[in-house]
Amino acid sequence: MANPKIGICLGSKSDLPQLENAQKLLKEMGVPYEVRILSAHRTPGRAAEYASGARGRGIKVLIGMAGVAAHLAGALAAHSDLPVLGIPAAGGPLSGFDALLATVQMPPGVPVATFAVGKMGATNAALFACQIIAQTEPEVQQGIVDYRAAMRAKVQAADAELNS
Amino acid sequence: MANPKIGICLGSKSDLPQLENAQKLLKEMGVPYEVRILSAHRTPGRAAEYASGARGRGIKVLIGMAGVAAHLAGALAAHSDLPVLGIPAAGGPLSGFDALLATVQMPPGVPVATFAVGKMGATNAALFACQIIAQTEPEVQQGIVDYRAAMRAKVQAADAELNS
Amino acid sequence: MANPKIGICLGSKSDLPQLENAQKLLKEMGVPYEVRILSAHRTPGRAAEYASGARGRGIKVLIGMAGVAAHLAGALAAHSDLPVLGIPAAGGPLSGFDALLATVQMPPGVPVATFAVGKMGATNAALFACQIIAQTEPEVQQGIVDYRAAMRAKVQAADAELNS
Amino acid sequence: MANPKIGICLGSKSDLPQLENAQKLLKEMGVPYEVRILSAHRTPGRAAEYASGARGRGIKVLIGMAGVAAHLAGALAAHSDLPVLGIPAAGGPLSGFDALLATVQMPPGVPVATFAVGKMGATNAALFACQIIAQTEPEVQQGIVDYRAAMRAKVQAADAELNS
Amino acid sequence: MANPKIGICLGSKSDLPQLENAQKLLKEMGVPYEVRILSAHRTPGRAAEYASGARGRGIKVLIGMAGVAAHLAGALAAHSDLPVLGIPAAGGPLSGFDALLATVQMPPGVPVATFAVGKMGATNAALFACQIIAQTEPEVQQGIVDYRAAMRAKVQAADAELNS
Amino acid sequence: MANPKIGICLGSKSDLPQLENAQKLLKEMGVPYEVRILSAHRTPGRAAEYASGARGRGIKVLIGMAGVAAHLAGALAAHSDLPVLGIPAAGGPLSGFDALLATVQMPPGVPVATFAVGKMGATNAALFACQIIAQTEPEVQQGIVDYRAAMRAKVQAADAELNS
Amino acid sequence: MANPKIGICLGSKSDLPQLENAQKLLKEMGVPYEVRILSAHRTPGRAAEYASGARGRGIKVLIGMAGVAAHLAGALAAHSDLPVLGIPAAGGPLSGFDALLATVQMPPGVPVATFAVGKMGATNAALFACQIIAQTEPEVQQGIVDYRAAMRAKVQAADAELNS
Amino acid sequence: MANPKIGICLGSKSDLPQLENAQKLLKEMGVPYEVRILSAHRTPGRAAEYASGARGRGIKVLIGMAGVAAHLAGALAAHSDLPVLGIPAAGGPLSGFDALLATVQMPPGVPVATFAVGKMGATNAALFACQIIAQTEPEVQQGIVDYRAAMRAKVQAADAELNS
Repeated sequence: MANPKIGICLGSKSDLPQLENAQKLLKEMGVPYEVRILSAHRTPGRAAEYASGARGRGIKVLIGMAGVAAHLAGALAAHSDLPVLGIPAAGGPLSGFDALLATVQMPPGVPVATFAVGKMGATNAALFACQIIAQTEPEVQQGIVDYRAAMRAKVQAADAELNS
Repeated sequence: MANPKIGICLGSKSDLPQLENAQKLLKEMGVPYEVRILSAHRTPGRAAEYASGARGRGIKVLIGMAGVAAHLAGALAAHSDLPVLGIPAAGGPLSGFDALLATVQMPPGVPVATFAVGKMGATNAALFACQIIAQTEPEVQQGIVDYRAAMRAKVQAADAELNS
Repeated sequence: MANPKIGICLGSKSDLPQLENAQKLLKEMGVPYEVRILSAHRTPGRAAEYASGARGRGIKVLIGMAGVAAHLAGALAAHSDLPVLGIPAAGGPLSGFDALLATVQMPPGVPVATFAVGKMGATNAALFACQIIAQTEPEVQQGIVDYRAAMRAKVQAADAELNS
Repeated sequence: MANPKIGICLGSKSDLPQLENAQKLLKEMGVPYEVRILSAHRTPGRAAEYASGARGRGIKVLIGMAGVAAHLAGALAAHSDLPVLGIPAAGGPLSGFDALLATVQMPPGVPVATFAVGKMGATNAALFACQIIAQTEPEVQQGIVDYRAAMRAKVQAADAELNS
Repeated sequence: MANPKIGICLGSKSDLPQLENAQKLLKEMGVPYEVRILSAHRTPGRAAEYASGARGRGIKVLIGMAGVAAHLAGALAAHSDLPVLGIPAAGGPLSGFDALLATVQMPPGVPVATFAVGKMGATNAALFACQIIAQTEPEVQQGIVDYRAAMRAKVQAADAELNS
Repeated sequence: MANPKIGICLGSKSDLPQLENAQKLLKEMGVPYEVRILSAHRTPGRAAEYASGARGRGIKVLIGMAGVAAHLAGALAAHSDLPVLGIPAAGGPLSGFDALLATVQMPPGVPVATFAVGKMGATNAALFACQIIAQTEPEVQQGIVDYRAAMRAKVQAADAELNS
Repeated sequence: MANPKIGICLGSKSDLPQLENAQKLLKEMGVPYEVRILSAHRTPGRAAEYASGARGRGIKVLIGMAGVAAHLAGALAAHSDLPVLGIPAAGGPLSGFDALLATVQMPPGVPVATFAVGKMGATNAALFACQIIAQTEPEVQQGIVDYRAAMRAKVQAADAELNS
Repeated sequence: MANPKIGICLGSKSDLPQLENAQKLLKEMGVPYEVRILSAHRTPGRAAEYASGARGRGIKVLIGMAGVAAHLAGALAAHSDLPVLGIPAAGGPLSGFDALLATVQMPPGVPVATFAVGKMGATNAALFACQIIAQTEPEVQQGIVDYRAAMRAKVQAADAELNS
């Protein structure tokens, strides 16, 4: 997409399926984003460079998703003063519990806003990124309002269907 | 403070000490904030009302800090479409591990950006809130840049002192 | 059912299968109940309203079942002084362990009587709800006595079969 | 106390301090109770006898508090069809986490309504016991209403004091 | 089997498959045993009676296998001064981790010798029971020596095969 | 002591205080024992030699107590076909939880009968060792009966005192 | 292979599949290695002998992979002053979490360099072994440099493909 | 020290006390080392630069010690093909358990040889670093042999003292 506002980095191509609903949400919101495969451990220079240059390219929010000893979001936060969101990828022998602790327990001074393990957290990170974008773009705010209304309606419909 | 931009809610007065560094940081940044004692469980109506009314009062970011089955940040997120940050309070027999899971594992559609357990996470939530405020206020962005430079300098000074 | 005495709330339609045995038990006991889909996070107002109005509608016990950062039972307890039972739903990357801590570790003053993770806990919550109803309805007490006798008989039959 | 309605059993005398606030609450509520030291493992016969005979003595709710491999509440539930509440005692090398799992994860058919680890859970178990007693005693229900109002007022006062 | 020396109690028929290898081992050892379905929670009286009467019937070792809030081995130990072995059954949302803590963390004075979660632990409990029986029966001791030799040979054969 | 029947091995001198009650119990029971400092990792040859030679020296039960990656009991079991009991020592950053898993999760064929973490488990291991010794020594069996009676009496006395 | 430089020991033949990628990597690196099935618990003498003799046979690094109460790497380290690497095998009811703690939490004086649970850790142990071998063999160092370059290229290619 | 062979990096000055025994050991071994305060998150550029330049400066082993979401060792490994050892620092609300998972669960291709949480692991990392240095320096190998002999002697002395 041209002029992405959200930069999503994955530590590994294999985490892409966990990002599916998040991407769908961003498309519905009409917020341009890009997805990059950048590993904090395997391509640290590229990850650092990407994070450092993101603001200059018009990116407003960075999202890092990685599994196991998940350092990606923290590495982005180390190299950029943009808001950084972290998604602990599910999977592996410890089910993403390792990724959760490696993402959320950041030391003072370098925050990573962390969301739930796996695709559930990915969706929420995308939505939260929109809430940040909405600080300056009223139409995104309207999209959030609509999203929440639709979500409420869906729960109400399920309730109504069960009790009809 | 007049015209607070950040609304910090604590589930209990006893969590205040864990907020100390965070408050100091916000004062240094010059970002007006307010601290409220509002319990998701004991005063749910007031918490809901506070969250619902926050945007109208000029609040741009909500922060909820609570311990054990920590629902406060989630309750704020349920009643407001402002960005909501969550701090799991340390303490209790399970050391805040319960608060961490109760804060971060939010279902899709209602994100709570979660930070580390205890005062470390409180500082980061405050800093992250500034990153959101900085979307529209350049002088806060400058404060963040300065904060990060000072942080770097402090680590370098410790390194230099150790090796002098 | 007309005049339900137990109000069961699910945070999501997807948790319904975990409630199956519990519903069967309530039907056998002849205790009228209703099942609602009400999310503490997605439809907080409706959940609050439901909890607040439950006593007036003749409900005697509320049950909340939710997964991950499971706040539903706590939200019911925040809005009603009826006895509230909580069932941590199984599932998700952390297997319901998050839901357990988010349900059971309630702060003093707002109790949620918590049962085991998943369908096992759902059955027990239903049975416990009957024990509360039985405070005022002797025929439900008789149902409990019969249920326990049948349960004992079933274990004894399995033992006998194995040793025949 | 004469004619106790709540029977509280501790697995060990050393758990008494964790019961302090709970006892204070019951006294304020005016609900007569008794406290017994009865171990599921060391005096199983007495525990079984106590549970079996409780209903006949006018007891309406049983509460079991024990630590480590906490079986007491489950043992009471095995020998009585009264509602049984379980409090995992804090302490020991595993901090009560073992007691929590040993109390809450009861198999289907023998529910133990479980509360938080330690004194926090003890207070809530006492309050929940009152909610059961209140099914048949309106003045206890009034006590609960008053308790909740006082609790709300206390949180509001803390909030007011902080913001004065 | 006539004159069983080992009494194995299962909390539920559904745990039988986890006992398969253990039974095979006992048969190979020629140690007579019996398997009973006796629940600490559903048929506590029968379990207590079984444990109390075991010594009189010639039983030398009791084994209890149960899942979730696994109290069975502890209940046997409460009612008998025979050596009691505990096997935490695998399964359930928490994978047997709950059963492990509920079995091993017994309070002082009522030991339960605990083995690994699931079928692995069942095999070891059976072997350990033979080690106790072998205190008075030399041919069982010979069986253990043979079993260990065969086990060693099997590992050596696997090593040899891999390196041939 | 002359002619010890129980061989207790500690991985480190620093674990001795956790063994205090256990030693007191064995003295009361009149069962001769010895305590050795033998590390599975630091003096593996001596540990192996000790375990191999134990039966020949009249030892009937081996007990291993160690912390962190606690291999001592397993090492004893690898080198002797005597019954081996394991006590996970409390302490260290992970509180003995590591020692518990490293002791109890033994692979099939090499059982270690495991007891609770720390001094509580040490007492129970000592008592269980007596239960094994009692297979061939009636006076030890009498000691166990007396111990259990005294334990019961103590709980009853605490109960009586509380209710006097 | 002739003149192996790395000695890999598995506690069980069933762990072989988790070693597949590691073996592939060592072959690509051209570092001769051997794989042995040697159990710390079932064939302790052989494991000790193997470890003691390894240096004399030209082995430079030992690797131990085992599951559950994984003692193998620790046993190798107890019997050799060669560098010992440990891989906690995945699997079992506790998913390898037990193996991780039993491998990494070694007491001071007997280090085991531990890697991630399962095949991921196996690959890294193999690579790390090459880093040790490379201390004296420059061509292995070149292999590592090439491996890292290929790894980087692969991540970059995935990134490029996603964004093409 | 001149010409350090081991480069130890701490994420924070506050972790220095956990390194005390490790430093003592290296001094006894006569292996020159340096200690640097370099944060993966606060001074990522300096950490990267240090790691990249280490080999050129004669460093043979890198050690990273950090707490909470401990990324330091992983960051060193990302920027250098030297062997990297990781020590999870103890402390914080989660006691170093977070640091353990964030250090050990590295993805394939970027190994971090991980040791126990806290000062125990620090000592072992130092000793293991010597084992690597010893690949090319026979006198360090002799130091290791002496260290192990002294360690054995100390355990034997404790054993002898206890049994004298």
